[in-house]
Amino acid sequence: MASATAGKVITCKAAVAYEAGKALSIEEVEVAPPKANEVRIKITHTALCHTDHYTLSGQDPEGLFPCILGHEAAGIVESVGEGVTDVKPGDHVIPCYQAECKECKYCKSGKTNLCIKVRPATGKGVMLADGQPRFSVKGKPIYHFMGTSTFSEYTVVHDVSVAKINPEAPLDKVCLLGCGIPTGLGAVFNTAKVEAGSTVAVFGLGTVGLAVCEGAKKAGASRIIGVDMNPAKYELAKKFGATEFVNPKDHDKPIQQVLVDLTDGGVDYSFECIGNVKVMRAALEACHRGWGTSVIIGVAGAGQEISTRPFQLVTGRVWKGTAFGGYKSRSDVPKLVEQYLQKEIKVDEYITHNFKLDSINEAFELLEAGKCLRAVIHME
Amino acid sequence: MASATAGKVITCKAAVAYEAGKALSIEEVEVAPPKANEVRIKITHTALCHTDHYTLSGQDPEGLFPCILGHEAAGIVESVGEGVTDVKPGDHVIPCYQAECKECKYCKSGKTNLCIKVRPATGKGVMLADGQPRFSVKGKPIYHFMGTSTFSEYTVVHDVSVAKINPEAPLDKVCLLGCGIPTGLGAVFNTAKVEAGSTVAVFGLGTVGLAVCEGAKKAGASRIIGVDMNPAKYELAKKFGATEFVNPKDHDKPIQQVLVDLTDGGVDYSFECIGNVKVMRAALEACHRGWGTSVIIGVAGAGQEISTRPFQLVTGRVWKGTAFGGYKSRSDVPKLVEQYLQKEIKVDEYITHNFKLDSINEAFELLEAGKCLRAVIHME
Ligand SMILES: NC(=O)c1ccc[n+]([C@@H]2O[C@H](COP(=O)([O-])OP(=O)(O)OC[C@H]3O[C@@H](n4cnc5c(N)ncnc54)[C@H](O)[C@@H]3O)[C@@H](O)[C@H]2O)c1
Ligand SMILES: NC(=O)c1ccc[n+]([C@@H]2O[C@H](COP(=O)([O-])OP(=O)(O)OC[C@H]3O[C@@H](n4cnc5c(N)ncnc54)[C@H](O)[C@@H]3O)[C@@H](O)[C@H]2O)c1
Repeated sequence: MASATAGKVITCKAAVAYEAGKALSIEEVEVAPPKANEVRIKITHTALCHTDHYTLSGQDPEGLFPCILGHEAAGIVESVGEGVTDVKPGDHVIPCYQAECKECKYCKSGKTNLCIKVRPATGKGVMLADGQPRFSVKGKPIYHFMGTSTFSEYTVVHDVSVAKINPEAPLDKVCLLGCGIPTGLGAVFNTAKVEAGSTVAVFGLGTVGLAVCEGAKKAGASRIIGVDMNPAKYELAKKFGATEFVNPKDHDKPIQQVLVDLTDGGVDYSFECIGNVKVMRAALEACHRGWGTSVIIGVAGAGQEISTRPFQLVTGRVWKGTAFGGYKSRSDVPKLVEQYLQKEIKVDEYITHNFKLDSINEAFELLEAGKCLRAVIHME
Repeated sequence: MASATAGKVITCKAAVAYEAGKALSIEEVEVAPPKANEVRIKITHTALCHTDHYTLSGQDPEGLFPCILGHEAAGIVESVGEGVTDVKPGDHVIPCYQAECKECKYCKSGKTNLCIKVRPATGKGVMLADGQPRFSVKGKPIYHFMGTSTFSEYTVVHDVSVAKINPEAPLDKVCLLGCGIPTGLGAVFNTAKVEAGSTVAVFGLGTVGLAVCEGAKKAGASRIIGVDMNPAKYELAKKFGATEFVNPKDHDKPIQQVLVDLTDGGVDYSFECIGNVKVMRAALEACHRGWGTSVIIGVAGAGQEISTRPFQLVTGRVWKGTAFGGYKSRSDVPKLVEQYLQKEIKVDEYITHNFKLDSINEAFELLEAGKCLRAVIHME
């Protein structure tokens, strides 16, 4: 099933980030054909995540402009480069910002999902084969972002970054399995390994925090305490498994003390799903002496640091973090899609808005204002 | 085998700390008989540890004076109070600053050795039964320290703080199994759970760091990199298992970078055995991305804090700590004594000096000057 466009440059619409702090610009971009071990994907749907916003805002010191953002998406393979064997044109796929080559030191360690294979290239916004991007506007190169660049009707990614999924899955929904939801679920199952009967505190009830609530419920946690400054989040979080709600604004005491008092010594597990270094400390210190484990998921501003007294750790608390919930992308994302199809995990419930690509800046404004969980962009 | 002194006040020699920053004073102290669930022990040998020095120096904000310091010791039960069933007069024992009641939330959790039972009392330098100390000098009360107070010919401890050991073990050696050696070994086996083939970095090669080297060797670590500012430590550390040595003074680069370069990305496990918050950060950052685990053992100065960028944890490093190496004192100390008798673990090799109680201040001076590993005080 070779497509008519295979081997040719495709000119299509994309949202280009020309400069930090500026709105995205909808442009006609040229997308070069995939080289060896690359896959060109027709993106059908893409969601917006805070990391896109973080880079666009200019806070990310490693952000490269001009670029095409986007990393939580789904689509259909249009064509493949030489040597690509795992996917073929027509396959339904989720591009994954965390690659999985199954060959590098990291993949083979059995201890982490942080594949290193294409990182030297994706960190520089280019492809591994030739150190060049596949995007251009009127011949001028445009950088890739996170190895995915899904704010484009077509994108080119490394084959180790493509998860092939069940073609029966609705792409306008499962695009969310490219980032936020797996991150929250995996933090519970892979990173913290929450056991039945545990007490859990979830700091920040956005998509990631709600997915943590959902995971904790599935794991059999006895108490799931949602912490958010926005009281509107409580009713929502209940649907995802939260059993209690604490608003730091309602208390004079530090929030860690509130939680310690509420749980007779602290929670068994806490999760920071905001990106605030002060909350990261509170999340650790809200853990029970002797065994409490705190997992950092939120991405903090550049240069910011976490701190605590070492006694917190000497007396048994554990401080961890997670990227993409510890899931191995190509192996695990297809399984998450199956779980969704079997109604074992939620996805639809995280989608609060739908837009066309032309309105992507509007979606960013909602995200920035904290008025949406996930907005899905329908590319056509 | 009731002793002639049972039920009576014993007057004996002890080293009393009257004031922070002052030398210890050898005094005649009165030691009251044990009340219910208490054990009076004739201390035969006690070693000196940094925590004793730390409190004596006045750095410990919770230090109470006047008190009797000492927590790494061995002795023989002289008499027991009502309800004591696990030991009887004549038993050889090691007093343990970390109790094990086998009944509290902590003991029953299966997740920690930090028994809480007598902590409300030991934290205040008194006994649980009546909130009073059992020591006095000319009728004026003297506080207990860490629930052990072993710088005395006789001491009274809670029954949950007494490990009964094989009477064949030489008390002048196994007294060391009351603190430093188990802390280092346990950090490897219980806290980090080092696997065969791992790379390990040990920051600080005092008794604790050397015990970590020994544990890592037993665990089958492939590389054990000792880090110390004192080059004299290298020859010594080799005997305990260190395979390489790095002196931070020999490098311009931060020590974490030196280790990352030396190990192609960082070590699998690192241990901080100094009590320096800057080194704690370096030890974490010397760990391999994706899985490296750093264990804090050193006790930092009051109010000092550790810090790092949260990205260190988000990319898979784990920050932990340990108290008494995670060993459950009454259950595990007797087993360590057996291991020593079977020549499976070293003890004699850590003893560099021997003194009489009268010379205890001399031993403290050596410790402070970094000139000894362990000095053992022979009480008679
Ligand atoms: N580690 C990873 O792999 C990974 C993956 C995806 C997202 N993230 C990060 O996770 C974080 C959360 O993402 P999201 O999409 O759920 O974000 P979000 O903005 O939708 O949710 C954040 C929530 O935190 C609440 N909040 C803000 N400040 C607070 C405070 N001080 N105390 C309590 N609540 C507070 C907000 O009201 C909001 O409900 C972001 O930092 C994102 O970059 C990390
Ligand atoms: N967590 C626990 O349960 C527990 C138990 C016992 C001891 N400790 C603590 O462990 C620590 C070590 O105890 P120890 O008896 O082995 O101490 P020690 O003083 O004998 O050894 C410390 C070593 O660190 C070296 N050192 C100092 N500063 C350094 C630096 N910046 N870089 C590299 N090396 C440096 C010194 O040269 C020395 O060799 C102390 O803080 C002690 O209080 C903790």
